[in-house]
Amino acid sequence: MAHIALKEGLPGIRGLLAYRPETARPLSDLAQVPLHDLNSLERSDRELIATFVSSLNDCHYSQTSHGAIAACHLGGDEELVERVKRDFNAAPIPEKLKALLAIAGRVQRGGRNVRPEDIERARAHGATDLEIHDTVLIAAAFCMYNRYVDGLATTAPQDAESYRERAAGVAASGYRGLPALLSQQ
Amino acid sequence: MAHIALKEGLPGIRGLLAYRPETARPLSDLAQVPLHDLNSLERSDRELIATFVSSLNDCHYSQTSHGAIAACHLGGDEELVERVKRDFNAAPIPEKLKALLAIAGRVQRGGRNVRPEDIERARAHGATDLEIHDTVLIAAAFCMYNRYVDGLATTAPQDAESYRERAAGVAASGYRGLPALLSQQ
Repeated sequence: MAHIALKEGLPGIRGLLAYRPETARPLSDLAQVPLHDLNSLERSDRELIATFVSSLNDCHYSQTSHGAIAACHLGGDEELVERVKRDFNAAPIPEKLKALLAIAGRVQRGGRNVRPEDIERARAHGATDLEIHDTVLIAAAFCMYNRYVDGLATTAPQDAESYRERAAGVAASGYRGLPALLSQQ
Repeated sequence: MAHIALKEGLPGIRGLLAYRPETARPLSDLAQVPLHDLNSLERSDRELIATFVSSLNDCHYSQTSHGAIAACHLGGDEELVERVKRDFNAAPIPEKLKALLAIAGRVQRGGRNVRPEDIERARAHGATDLEIHDTVLIAAAFCMYNRYVDGLATTAPQDAESYRERAAGVAASGYRGLPALLSQQ
């Protein structure tokens, strides 16, 4: 049971977005821009970064929901998502994404852990300033979302299918419409 | 030197807000609502929570800038801010705020560290659901801001006076106007 009284039937961050509409708006925009709006990194890459950081933070809801969204963007390849979480350096993904995941993992441990050589490795594989910026911001933001979701002890369903269903909606429509959608439920 | 090319003369998160206006908007709104908009917790209490978490994350820029904003709201009492950072349980602050700072400290270590008895202690001293929610969100959000600022190696001035000057502006006007202000600098 959550630490505060939330609407039933809205797991994870969804109950919190419905609880406080004033903070739901910036929280959903802060997911929309770096994860869903088009830029030079694939949506699947950005969702994998979010999923990986959430797995390091041991946040069941976020790693499962964003893992399912990443899989949607990867044509349903849930196995690749699991491989990235388990050992991204051994996963069949581009070297640039490996370098960005390495930066994200350092951010998760604390901002001061990112070393100039981590940035150099990403640049050597073609990462731009904006891609490095967004990687650090996504990793930092999921250190917030994960703590928000677990710090208030929200519910996290255990069945994979309900995550797949919600993921399909977000993968198609993005995050910006979530507060309005949840306020109607 | 920062890990990416940022405009000179804008320390800490200010350079990052100027760098990426699309994310600056939700990032500044996410500070405005829980820290500056009026609610049942004093602005000074909420800035002390942000300052305390930033000190636990060893983020010089955020703990000094929000410590200076907290001091503004406390009529200039910088000594109280230092006492809260050093040992809030021994500081001359209300028991409710001590209980909320204890929750914030647990969120900083990870969301799963918040225990039902931490919530009960806050409730016993009169904390409402909304105050508990905002405490967890502020603590979680500063685990993001701190990692964002340090993960990109932004500059953090060492002189206290420049923090006091910037703090006076934010304490008076809030966070929402920062992106527009910084884009003109």
